[in-house]
Amino acid sequence: MERALVLFSGGLDSTTTVAVARSTGFEPFLLVFRYGQRHGVEVERAVALANELGLAYHVQEIDLRAAGGSALTSDEIAVPRARDPEHIASGPIPPTYVPARNTVFLALALAWSEVRGIDDVFIGVNALDYSGYPDCRPEFIAAFERLANLACRSTTENGRRLRIHAPLIDKTKAEIIRLGIELGVDYARTWSCYDPRPGSGIGAGGALPPPRACGECDSCLLRARGFAEAGVPDPAAYYRA
Amino acid sequence: MERALVLFSGGLDSTTTVAVARSTGFEPFLLVFRYGQRHGVEVERAVALANELGLAYHVQEIDLRAAGGSALTSDEIAVPRARDPEHIASGPIPPTYVPARNTVFLALALAWSEVRGIDDVFIGVNALDYSGYPDCRPEFIAAFERLANLACRSTTENGRRLRIHAPLIDKTKAEIIRLGIELGVDYARTWSCYDPRPGSGIGAGGALPPPRACGECDSCLLRARGFAEAGVPDPAAYYRA
Repeated sequence: MERALVLFSGGLDSTTTVAVARSTGFEPFLLVFRYGQRHGVEVERAVALANELGLAYHVQEIDLRAAGGSALTSDEIAVPRARDPEHIASGPIPPTYVPARNTVFLALALAWSEVRGIDDVFIGVNALDYSGYPDCRPEFIAAFERLANLACRSTTENGRRLRIHAPLIDKTKAEIIRLGIELGVDYARTWSCYDPRPGSGIGAGGALPPPRACGECDSCLLRARGFAEAGVPDPAAYYRA
Repeated sequence: MERALVLFSGGLDSTTTVAVARSTGFEPFLLVFRYGQRHGVEVERAVALANELGLAYHVQEIDLRAAGGSALTSDEIAVPRARDPEHIASGPIPPTYVPARNTVFLALALAWSEVRGIDDVFIGVNALDYSGYPDCRPEFIAAFERLANLACRSTTENGRRLRIHAPLIDKTKAEIIRLGIELGVDYARTWSCYDPRPGSGIGAGGALPPPRACGECDSCLLRARGFAEAGVPDPAAYYRA
């Protein structure tokens, strides 16, 4: 079975991307990033999900908080709330944009894939129901693939060719959800929220309750609209004030 | 004064690049990488030199040792020694190649430059007296610049243009050294060695003596040949068994 590297956050898109990679005959190796994100809980959820899926993974630490400049990596920039989902993709690039994030993630994926002899990298970017981030567009992905094939020993000396797969790039969120359900994705296990809220009650053995999705950030809103359009209930646990 | 970001290791090439950036009217901000390199001493030297030069800097931590796959990031792969410098650039890519290193470094430079409103990034790559690394070639640099201008908010929404400057790319090591001397670079303060040796004697206050350059790795050999061809003594402290 051919191995593929999948950039994995444990969210709706990247979890669906894992399922697509598997369904097309790849054995995924997951690369998870702890980059100083406000929603650090996504890393714990991604690791738990990787274990449930029985897939090999690595958590790559990379501090993007030192550079900052984003609502996701700086406590001084607020996450936009309760925006009209119709305008999220068409408006200006919002403050949740993290400078150069996908360039950094794909560069690190390139290092890992070269060392492990992997020629196929999957990324769950999506250029329709998304926040307008420039590094989620098809022209960015194509330019990165071109760069990758100039950058490595494997591709310049050993004649291999690295492919960047973005199987969700032209799908709506509803189409992604329908595809994932067909492929057996359990969306109850995925985490999308940028701005987690405290859970309620007390967890097992008196532990802190698990955090809940806010339901109001762009990522929660795009997710909710996707489930609504797909005609499927969203199994995520949301915060209720 | 326009600011520029310079990728800075404290070595001969990047220190000369800082001098070139200054001489062309830029105020450099230095980005130093602690990436799990065998020659971790270069980070200390780079920071010391940045302070001596009175320049702002940031040390970005990025663990490339977890991926490994290089003599510089894995203790299980040996650094080649005492090779004929004539064959270093023309032979196969050596084990000191670090997978995707310049892609990762430039991606992080992109994050920092965008956050700081910097449009000019300098990198001291050189495609003549070098180890044949694919990510030091002009076509790699051009492809990265193209990618960068698709990747960022600053370039896609705000109409700015990011430029990657590689002022040493087509120079011999001797030409680089002559240029640096003209620009006032003190090469005694630069560190080039991949595989440091213990220093001798005892330092100030009974401290460990500073490490010395091995004189036998590709980087030491290319440096030595450069100084010989430039007709200038190399002021670095070398290990003598």
